[in-house]
Amino acid sequence: MIKELVKGNRSYRRFFEDEKISMDTLKDLIDLGRLAPSGKNVQPLRYILTNEEEMNKRVFPHLKWAGYLKDWGGPIEGEKPSAYIIIMWDKTLPTSRDIAICDLGIASQSILLGAREKGLGGCIFWSFSRKDLIEVFNIDDKYEPLQVIAIGKPKEEVVIDEINKDGNIEYWRDKNFVHHVPKRKLDDIIIG
Amino acid sequence: MIKELVKGNRSYRRFFEDEKISMDTLKDLIDLGRLAPSGKNVQPLRYILTNEEEMNKRVFPHLKWAGYLKDWGGPIEGEKPSAYIIIMWDKTLPTSRDIAICDLGIASQSILLGAREKGLGGCIFWSFSRKDLIEVFNIDDKYEPLQVIAIGKPKEEVVIDEINKDGNIEYWRDKNFVHHVPKRKLDDIIIG
Repeated sequence: MIKELVKGNRSYRRFFEDEKISMDTLKDLIDLGRLAPSGKNVQPLRYILTNEEEMNKRVFPHLKWAGYLKDWGGPIEGEKPSAYIIIMWDKTLPTSRDIAICDLGIASQSILLGAREKGLGGCIFWSFSRKDLIEVFNIDDKYEPLQVIAIGKPKEEVVIDEINKDGNIEYWRDKNFVHHVPKRKLDDIIIG
Repeated sequence: MIKELVKGNRSYRRFFEDEKISMDTLKDLIDLGRLAPSGKNVQPLRYILTNEEEMNKRVFPHLKWAGYLKDWGGPIEGEKPSAYIIIMWDKTLPTSRDIAICDLGIASQSILLGAREKGLGGCIFWSFSRKDLIEVFNIDDKYEPLQVIAIGKPKEEVVIDEINKDGNIEYWRDKNFVHHVPKRKLDDIIIG
């Protein structure tokens, strides 16, 4: 069952933008991050949530979409995310950067599996203008924005393929706009 | 339902050591890591699996258990983990250290939620002797061991408490050997 959730939790980049996401739903998702393990239990992550059109419009321009899809500039009007979660690290707490970033992965995956269970989907961004988001949200110096998760009701099909012999891991879109993600084989990632 | 899994997926440190874990079970868990999202889809993580008594005995001494429990040196004979997963980063692949470590968190949580679903549990280790594990497994220079996950059938009760007003996040054990983990409140981790 968890396998179906994990398999179904792909990076979605096109959404039914008019499907709104309530603040309660976003808080339910953050709660999964809150309950997940944290290195030395420091829990150094902090969250900013947005689900309103006005604020979403101020976040969107600062995200860099789908590096491998050179001809695609991101979702068009009507297919943009309905909400964003900005995840920050409180640098004043006694944990290392490595542990904070591992906590980030643990929390992100928990949040996205929760989104999937609710029929939603999302996409994790590393590539975004930190400087601009700090300005948009007036983020205090003690926080470092690490990641943005875009959330919405997915409007695209994403499939997992077995990696080709050439070893190319770049995702791509076919002529029907289906998004393909080549994954390495189990035997190739287990050593010894 | 995912919430129950996330809540139940605590860091377990005492196990029914005679409950063996098959290599097929370990591979099922790694498959969850394999299918999880990866930054730029590079999939830079590699895994070493051990479930045999002899090899487990060679891993155990190199792990540092439960930093906050000063009077506890780790599980006694009969309560040690039945298996270990060593997760490494292939440094030759085109990804940053930050993204590899976030991938690590995503994969670890997927693996541990899968373990929980199977009635197993585990504990993530950042504190271990990298030098010694590199020697035990004769690990190639191109890999950096990032983390060890110990796996077994849990033999302890772990509960989540609301954090006290003093803000202390250290986990502790009560007189009945129940392990308590103080978690921050939702309102304290959502900013703005």
